[in-house]
Amino acid sequence: MTLPITRTAVLGAGSWGTTFAAVLADAGREVTVWGRRAEVCEQIDTEHRNERSLPGIDLPRGVRATTEAAQALAGAQLVAVAVPAQSARATLAPLAPLIEPGAVVVSLMKGVELSSDRRMSEVLREALALPADRVAVVSGPNLAREIAQRQPTATVVASTDEGTAQRVAASCASGYFRPYTNTDVVGVELCGAVKNVIAVAVGIAQGRGFGHNTMATVITRGLAEITRLGLALGADAETFSGLAGMGDLVATCASPLSRNHTLGVHVGQGTSLEEAVLATGGTAEGVKSSTSVLELAVSVGVEMPITSAVVDVLHHGLPVDQMAQLLLARPHKAERA
Amino acid sequence: MTLPITRTAVLGAGSWGTTFAAVLADAGREVTVWGRRAEVCEQIDTEHRNERSLPGIDLPRGVRATTEAAQALAGAQLVAVAVPAQSARATLAPLAPLIEPGAVVVSLMKGVELSSDRRMSEVLREALALPADRVAVVSGPNLAREIAQRQPTATVVASTDEGTAQRVAASCASGYFRPYTNTDVVGVELCGAVKNVIAVAVGIAQGRGFGHNTMATVITRGLAEITRLGLALGADAETFSGLAGMGDLVATCASPLSRNHTLGVHVGQGTSLEEAVLATGGTAEGVKSSTSVLELAVSVGVEMPITSAVVDVLHHGLPVDQMAQLLLARPHKAERA
Repeated sequence: MTLPITRTAVLGAGSWGTTFAAVLADAGREVTVWGRRAEVCEQIDTEHRNERSLPGIDLPRGVRATTEAAQALAGAQLVAVAVPAQSARATLAPLAPLIEPGAVVVSLMKGVELSSDRRMSEVLREALALPADRVAVVSGPNLAREIAQRQPTATVVASTDEGTAQRVAASCASGYFRPYTNTDVVGVELCGAVKNVIAVAVGIAQGRGFGHNTMATVITRGLAEITRLGLALGADAETFSGLAGMGDLVATCASPLSRNHTLGVHVGQGTSLEEAVLATGGTAEGVKSSTSVLELAVSVGVEMPITSAVVDVLHHGLPVDQMAQLLLARPHKAERA
Repeated sequence: MTLPITRTAVLGAGSWGTTFAAVLADAGREVTVWGRRAEVCEQIDTEHRNERSLPGIDLPRGVRATTEAAQALAGAQLVAVAVPAQSARATLAPLAPLIEPGAVVVSLMKGVELSSDRRMSEVLREALALPADRVAVVSGPNLAREIAQRQPTATVVASTDEGTAQRVAASCASGYFRPYTNTDVVGVELCGAVKNVIAVAVGIAQGRGFGHNTMATVITRGLAEITRLGLALGADAETFSGLAGMGDLVATCASPLSRNHTLGVHVGQGTSLEEAVLATGGTAEGVKSSTSVLELAVSVGVEMPITSAVVDVLHHGLPVDQMAQLLLARPHKAERA
């Protein structure tokens, strides 16, 4: 019988990291956020706000913040990680000696590492030299700002070890935050990575002027191709129809706040990728992940026509009009063929 | 080998009936719409417009309209039916002698008949005394107005007879309208009926002030309960994750044009059902179907917590706040339990 978790740390003071710290505090945990920016940490610590990432939101008074990783990690039995996906390995490796023995490390990140095609929990295990049963993943229809406003939200906590998943779930559950456990880590992480690519595709269709019928079709066929990839990689089909799959995909594609979605809208309106990246204030994760996801799909022989079209538009100059034709001209007759 | 269909009729001159007539005309068919209102038929016939149901849309010049059912049905080898679900049986029975021998009849309707708990293709077969292989159903992410604007749209044509489904699909396919065939009529019709109930639930949550996380959760768990009901009634799980299931549900819940969704928003804001019905200009199908769907679920021992909560709010005076608590307080731990 393991004891309940008291002290926790969150690495990363962006909107999701800060929000998850608030979730942990509201669930009764002690929590310290580690961030790079002194002014952000100072504001969280003294004003209980993070105006840069969560403007207008009051954080629980229990959330502390520091720029010293050693201070955040000292005594933390649960460490949640929400740093940028592509630099996660480099950010985490130097922190390995600071992680408490026996601490559970939770990935809040979504994406696939470009250089290695690795999922985020794999990057985290490698960078911190952790066994699978000390790693968990949190993913679901979890727009950070809505959770920070304490709106009721469900999520999925996945770990290959059911006990670890339950321990993490118990540590973050509160009146408004309801975690469900799952042991299909591969499926949950794939959903989180590929949904950003599908959100770009939905944005492109909307930017091109198509309405809700097309949006719903791209989401439906997008989930079908995520599911095909997942099954080929040993994931469980039910994960994809659950909160981390369909739930997260629908929330991301419906929200005007999603950066992936917004970037797609700009591209669909005829903006270059460079200008779209500027307009959305940074490279959306789906832009980077699209190539890795497609490589993963090719390596296991799975067709992903929407992902492939997104890669062609973003990285190989395919005109948006031809993308639409490509998607509509698939030679299928029966729906499941 | 059956010959291609030349002449077609559409019963019902509302927005979906008129739109499907335009789809048939654009696919190269002759088509006559039967409507009750002389002024609507006159306008379709002479001005190629239906300002009452599709304001601002130009219809193909080939679409004709009449108030004489005999005139519309004479020689029609395909008859599409888009009349109000709850009065369909009474509307159709007198027309039975006018249907051409061998004609295929296509239901465009969504709902469950209150008095009998029958699906619309069952009502249609009984009212017109037709065998199953002469009946088909069209359903998918098909917001009428977007199709009438010739936006690219995918749909599902279902019949227990694959040849009938293919014949109907070939009759309505065009550059912008792409039908896929399916033989799971039960599944396709259940999706169409229950999604209206889920759309009411999503509207209630949004009217109550909840955001996209909650919307996505209700849609995801809604599809899960539709799927459970379908499997208990012999439907195929893949239908529910396809265009007629997930696709239609997402399109309906995302569109501000859906009457079911809008009615839910009013109810969520605290309006009485009577006032909400007035504000949305007529009783939304989901209000009527919710009771039938729940009866169907009870009869086969399937739990449908969202449908049940919608029935309680709409028909038994459950306060909206208690509905939210009910949905969030389900005692599940693992996602699939």
